[in-house]
Amino acid sequence: MGIWFDETFKSSRFGLKVTRTLFSAQSPFQKVDIFETEELGRVMTLDDAFMTSEGDEFFYHELLTHPAMLTAKAPERVLVIGGGDGGTVREVLRHASVKKCVMIEIDELVVRACMEHLPTIGTAWKDPRLEVRFADGVDYVKHSDEEKYDVVLLDGTDPIGPGEVLFDLEFFRACKRMLKPHGVMALQSETPLLMSEAFFETQVKLRSLFSKVAPYLGPVPLYPSGLWSWTWCSDTQDPFAIDEARAKGIVDSLRWYNLDVHRGAFAQPNYVRRGIADRVGTR
Amino acid sequence: MGIWFDETFKSSRFGLKVTRTLFSAQSPFQKVDIFETEELGRVMTLDDAFMTSEGDEFFYHELLTHPAMLTAKAPERVLVIGGGDGGTVREVLRHASVKKCVMIEIDELVVRACMEHLPTIGTAWKDPRLEVRFADGVDYVKHSDEEKYDVVLLDGTDPIGPGEVLFDLEFFRACKRMLKPHGVMALQSETPLLMSEAFFETQVKLRSLFSKVAPYLGPVPLYPSGLWSWTWCSDTQDPFAIDEARAKGIVDSLRWYNLDVHRGAFAQPNYVRRGIADRVGTR
Repeated sequence: MGIWFDETFKSSRFGLKVTRTLFSAQSPFQKVDIFETEELGRVMTLDDAFMTSEGDEFFYHELLTHPAMLTAKAPERVLVIGGGDGGTVREVLRHASVKKCVMIEIDELVVRACMEHLPTIGTAWKDPRLEVRFADGVDYVKHSDEEKYDVVLLDGTDPIGPGEVLFDLEFFRACKRMLKPHGVMALQSETPLLMSEAFFETQVKLRSLFSKVAPYLGPVPLYPSGLWSWTWCSDTQDPFAIDEARAKGIVDSLRWYNLDVHRGAFAQPNYVRRGIADRVGTR
Repeated sequence: MGIWFDETFKSSRFGLKVTRTLFSAQSPFQKVDIFETEELGRVMTLDDAFMTSEGDEFFYHELLTHPAMLTAKAPERVLVIGGGDGGTVREVLRHASVKKCVMIEIDELVVRACMEHLPTIGTAWKDPRLEVRFADGVDYVKHSDEEKYDVVLLDGTDPIGPGEVLFDLEFFRACKRMLKPHGVMALQSETPLLMSEAFFETQVKLRSLFSKVAPYLGPVPLYPSGLWSWTWCSDTQDPFAIDEARAKGIVDSLRWYNLDVHRGAFAQPNYVRRGIADRVGTR
């Protein structure tokens, strides 16, 4: 039989056969584990919930990052909140227009563990354009008077327990405060299936702040239901107006994302369209 | 803790909490179980592998059926091989152009069990245009001299053990034999992730038979990895040339599929595009 690690979510569970534990420790914020699996390579869990794996991380990181980056005007300054495994900043730093990427991660232990045990995910830690700060992202966006950003990416955990604040209207409002007028924000916004309330409530909150809000979907085998969502927000940009010239230099190095995938991900299934219309009215 | 049913696939597993067993029997072909779950309602397993659930069946059935039906010329005769739960013929029979739908299912016990215990899935059993035959679909397509079909849908099990023959080149060739010259065939073609070899081999086989072959992707939370594929095949039709007038009467009654979803599903991610190009060359 071997050793299995299962994540139970409501009344479903997903498990992977574990061949070896590489890291296990308690930080001031959460329990951090990294182990080796047959199916998806090395996997990190936080408080016993799957966060990322070598085998499927590209879905999540490519889809969180490139839709925002390629619809913003040649972004120079990018802010990432969370993202301790380094996958999101790796994708951001593929873009030659970026001069500065600030990553605010609350949990230093996550970054240290990932640097050591998930080096295939965090391949850009040494990029001189990257600045990693160990601080509370909520506090940062509420109080910082630093220069604004062209793109803000929210790469946080689920809105359960300590992560709940990352889905607050006040947090979203503060994130927008850090965005330049033509900026684009994107965030992971949970699964529209098993966590449909969190998904739809997030859509409603963001619509009260941005004039254009577009959820988009893609696969993440590691997460509950396997179908994940991200949400794109801006006051001035268009989620379908991709900068194709800039995209050219990026897409070839990616495993999933390309311009067809970008457009396809923004297709709103009936269930999503109706769920949003029921809550905010058609717009 | 309660009772859980887990399907193990290679070294991953997916489980659901079971509240009640409704049906359990061995047919001449396979073990058939239907139980009630908290998360996805009633669920059917065949030989202990998840086949369908009330909660997520619409993804699979809508995506198998409508891309082919809406790109064929107003289809009148439709053949379904497999599909014992009744979900695929239900979707077929939404189309007013259909005069005759023949479903060939090898296992009568599956249909009887689904008629009794999954009535929300098989809602079209009594449609007078439907003819259900309990027979071997492989035998039928190889030897039938009946009138040809406008659309052929292959709704079989995985290419493991008894289902292996459903992914043979000779079977696909025989299915094409049952298609009119302008016909469209679509089939479930496994996950391009955990079963990537089955997926890519199927693409290669179909390309040797049809001049246009287009895989498309969508979510099926119940199946391994949560990301599923279907493949659209025709000699004359175009997967993007949707009959929008006919679609209008269909889409409103669906939970997932619409024309944006159709187009988005055919977006080929880099991984899929490269995997096909590596095997068949670019075309």
